[in-house]
This record gives sequence, C-alpha cells and structure tokens, in this order.
Amino acid sequence: MHLVTGGAGFIGSHLVDALVSRGINVRVFDNFSSGREEFLSHHQGTGNVEVVRGDLLNIDEVQSAMSGIEMVHHLAANPDIRLGTEVTDTDLRQGTLATYNVLESMRKVGVNKISFSSSSAIYGEAEEMPTPETYGPVMPISLYGASKLGSEALITAWAGTFGANAWIHRFANIVGPRGTHGVIFDFIHKLKRDPSRLEVLGNGMQEKSYMSAEDCVRAMVHLVDFCVDNVSLYNLGTGDTCSVRRIAEIVVEESGLEGVSIEYTGGDRGWAGDVPKTSLEVGRLLSTGFKPDMASEDAIRHTARALITEIGL
Amino acid sequence: MHLVTGGAGFIGSHLVDALVSRGINVRVFDNFSSGREEFLSHHQGTGNVEVVRGDLLNIDEVQSAMSGIEMVHHLAANPDIRLGTEVTDTDLRQGTLATYNVLESMRKVGVNKISFSSSSAIYGEAEEMPTPETYGPVMPISLYGASKLGSEALITAWAGTFGANAWIHRFANIVGPRGTHGVIFDFIHKLKRDPSRLEVLGNGMQEKSYMSAEDCVRAMVHLVDFCVDNVSLYNLGTGDTCSVRRIAEIVVEESGLEGVSIEYTGGDRGWAGDVPKTSLEVGRLLSTGFKPDMASEDAIRHTARALITEIGL
Repeated sequence: MHLVTGGAGFIGSHLVDALVSRGINVRVFDNFSSGREEFLSHHQGTGNVEVVRGDLLNIDEVQSAMSGIEMVHHLAANPDIRLGTEVTDTDLRQGTLATYNVLESMRKVGVNKISFSSSSAIYGEAEEMPTPETYGPVMPISLYGASKLGSEALITAWAGTFGANAWIHRFANIVGPRGTHGVIFDFIHKLKRDPSRLEVLGNGMQEKSYMSAEDCVRAMVHLVDFCVDNVSLYNLGTGDTCSVRRIAEIVVEESGLEGVSIEYTGGDRGWAGDVPKTSLEVGRLLSTGFKPDMASEDAIRHTARALITEIGL
Repeated sequence: MHLVTGGAGFIGSHLVDALVSRGINVRVFDNFSSGREEFLSHHQGTGNVEVVRGDLLNIDEVQSAMSGIEMVHHLAANPDIRLGTEVTDTDLRQGTLATYNVLESMRKVGVNKISFSSSSAIYGEAEEMPTPETYGPVMPISLYGASKLGSEALITAWAGTFGANAWIHRFANIVGPRGTHGVIFDFIHKLKRDPSRLEVLGNGMQEKSYMSAEDCVRAMVHLVDFCVDNVSLYNLGTGDTCSVRRIAEIVVEESGLEGVSIEYTGGDRGWAGDVPKTSLEVGRLLSTGFKPDMASEDAIRHTARALITEIGL
C-alpha cells in the first residue's frame, strides 16, 4: 500500500487515480484544508482507497498512518503561494516541518521510499532559461519556494544519512480539473463575480511553464518505475511556456462570454515573490522516454473548460 | 550596532573581534550552549560589546534583541554535524527554525541586512570539484547541511518578498583558536586521554577544504563592504584541501608526543552524512580582491598549536 499525503487535494487526487489504475492500493492522509472528499468519491466502496483525516504537524498521527506502507508520495503543502506575503509561517509549517514529520515517521516505522512534489519555485529568478536541474545557485524568492527547497534538503539528507530512496519532482505550474488555486481558477471566479471585465495582476507579460495534472502524475509514476538511484531529481513540465495574457484570452474564449474587458494592474509581477518568467528545461525527463500529452497552452485550455464546468459561470 | 547571533561561539567570537576592530559596536545573542564567556572576556568593560543570553527559538527574545540594530550576522547553529545521525530535530530547530525567527524578527522591527554563515555541506557529494557557487543540484547528505540549505532558502525568500539585503557565505571547514568541535579538536582530546595512540574515523583519505577562522571573518566583513546586490553568495575557503591523514600527522607533530600510533577505523567516511571529499572553488571570492593569509595546511597547523595550548595535553 502507498501513502499519499495531500491525496484529497488537486494533484494528490489525480495521483491516487493513477496509482489505483495501476493496481496499487492507496491510503490518503489529508487535513482537508484544501482537499475535498468529492475528489475521491469515485473510489468510495471500491476498497482501493482508505482515507485518513489527519494533521501532518501531529507526528503521532503521521507515524500511525505509516503502518503497512511500502512507499510515501508526499504532496501535502499550502497551495496558495501568495499567502506567504502576509502570513510568514504557513509554508514553513505546512512545508518544511510537515516534511520533517513525514521523514522522521518513515524512519521510525521503517518505510524507505519517498516521492516528493517540489517546485520550479525553488529556482527563483533563474538567469538560465530554460532552467535545467543542474542550475545553481537556487535562490527561491517566495516563502513557498523556500519551503520546497527546505524539504528537498531534508529528503536528500535522509537519503544520505539513513539510506532512504527518494524521487524529487520539480513541478512546473500544474493545472487541471479539480484545481483549487492559481491563475485559471482565479480568472473564472473573477468572471463569475463580474462577467463584463477580467482584472489581471501585473502587466500580463508573466510567462511560465504549465503542465496538465494528468501528465504530471503520469510522469511521477513513470519516474518511480524508471529510476533506481538513491536520489533522482527531475523537472516536470512540457518544455514550452504560456503568458498570463494568453491565459486570460483562453479563459475568456472558453467562458463563451462576449465583450469582456481584460484589464491589467501593471507591473512586471502579480505580487512580491511571484517569479515573472519561468521556463523549465525538461530534456532530462524526455530522455527517460516520457512524453506529455498536452503542451502548456493545451493544458490551460483543457483546465479552463474543466474548471468552468466545476465552478459554473 | 550590529547583532551577532552565536557571537560567543567559535567563529562568532572571531567575527565580534573583527567588527569591533573596525569600530562597530556589537550586541551578542547567544544561548551559551557551545559559546563561552571567556571567548569575549577581552571585550569586557570596553563598552563595545553587549551580551544578551537568549534562545533563538523564543521569537520574543529575538525580537527584543533587534532594537537599535542596523545589521544582523546570523552565525548561531548546532556546531556538531555528527549529532544529526542520532537526534534528528536539532539541526531543524537550531538551524532552519532559528533562522526563521531571526528573519521574522528583522522584518517586524525593520532591520533589513543579514549576513549568514552557510556551509559547503549544502553541496553534499558534488560531482564537480572544486565546487563553484553555481553548482547544482545541491543535495546535502547531512541534516546539518539540510538546515543550512533550508536557511539559505528562507533568506533568499525574505530578500525576494520583503526586500531584505543578504550576504550568504558558504564556509569551507573553518578551524582556529577557540574551536569547540571538529577533527582537530577531537584528535587533541583523544591524545589527552591516551597519548600512545590516535584513532581516526574512516580510512583517513577524507579530504576537505579548510580555512582559518581569522581569514573567514575577514572575508565576511570584506564581502559585506564589497557587495551591493540584493543577495550575494560566495564560497569562503582557501582553494586547496588537506586529508584527514595529514591532519592527524600535523596534530601529532605539534603535540610533541613521541611514538604515537595513528590507527584508522576504515571505510570511506567518518560517519553517515560525512562528505568524504570536498573542495570549494573560491575564484569568485578571490576576484573581489580578498586573499586568505593561510592555506588549508597552515590553518590546520596554526589551529593545532592554539588548541593544544587551550586544551592542554
């Protein structure tokens, strides 16, 4: 049985689907702060998925959840990057400290495989683009990015000191059905409130790498099969980028609304700690034989359609 | 006035000396877990150094210590790298969490300059040697290294999100008078217990970059003057290396003891999480005009002499 922390959340629930479809039974550990029961409702009664409602900051709860587990997929984290500008200990606690509790519980119970959802946010404003895994120095500019790099460091230290096996996945911006945060989600909610105009934070020139959640979890599972190193570390993305301006246009197109005025607040970034341009080098991932089904723009259109249906306009 | 956390410790007290000699008044914040009052006794009664006995894990104490401070030098940390193999939360708490408390206190009080003692331990077992600042991916293998990388990440995030100015110094192995840990310190204590033999952990082929504490703090102060970037990041070392075998020979030579049998426990490293070979690329530091006074071997001999006097044989 595999444990998925944050398994009721956006990417976590997609990973549960991918694992179950490969015949793996899953225990989900989630505090349901952004996870939702309905993201897992299709597994109810199948006997394949067990749900534990718990808090990663309570190490006793985490340790209990490790019993009978062969491998941990640690995805739980605060998903709201912008929050770090206001509350400074959320990412530290929900990120770095939660990861410590996961690793320490694994060590105590004797679980030694961990797959971890890191982020391109660890690169900060990289001088090299597309940015490869070998880029340094990594200097995150958001508290979210700091918590992901702090977690990566704990994981490699556990691998080096206690012999754990680790897969670190540095995600591009992951988008898809069940998304609970992020630019597409925000745009749809804004249009729902006011269908005549769409306010875009920044000048719209921000440009990032996107990947569909379906491709993302497929890549994670693929890499766990493919890699046998003590620690394997890969960027997960599609190799291209899309601008916020283009995302706004796609969301408006998919909304079917007419005469929407797209307005920009100006400035080169959405908020302090937002990285205006990211582009992930994904040659290392592609060299393993993995091919994403959707490019960035396709993933965004697919997501806009799904979230418009989920949220309603 | 500058604040030096860990200012009563080994490197911290040398930094206090360097700052005072440049006419800067210093407030020391130390919990005296490894710091010692006698390391600062020469400043007593001068009015240049104020000592606050406090705990970095108590954020109220840290915040109080920030009043009237222009710049923070954050050196406090658990100095015993090997401890991480037994107690897994020491580095997390004394490292990453303490750094969070320092940064958050700075933000609240409005202090915006921080100089931080990071470590070559963040590079783990780097594939490129000598290892430059641009090396990646950084994958520490000790819990100490993880706490330093977690702290670096918090610092760059604070710089990116709240506009702090930061100097990150990735130290080689720093040795010198007042050392309270490390291989030279251990060897002298072993010879004190049994002057006939010296047990060396590992096969003695471990080889690392060393730098004298005097050169180290001179480089830190130099870089703070030299760099005006939002974040500046430098390796601090001498550009050469010395083997543990050679260190054992130097310590025995300086001890004046005759007929000491040097015995090796075997294996490529001293303990799990020990990096057997490190070599820091220091071209970036040298390009700023800084020149270390002592090469690795000179620093080790200088330290052996000083510690033999301090510890007594």
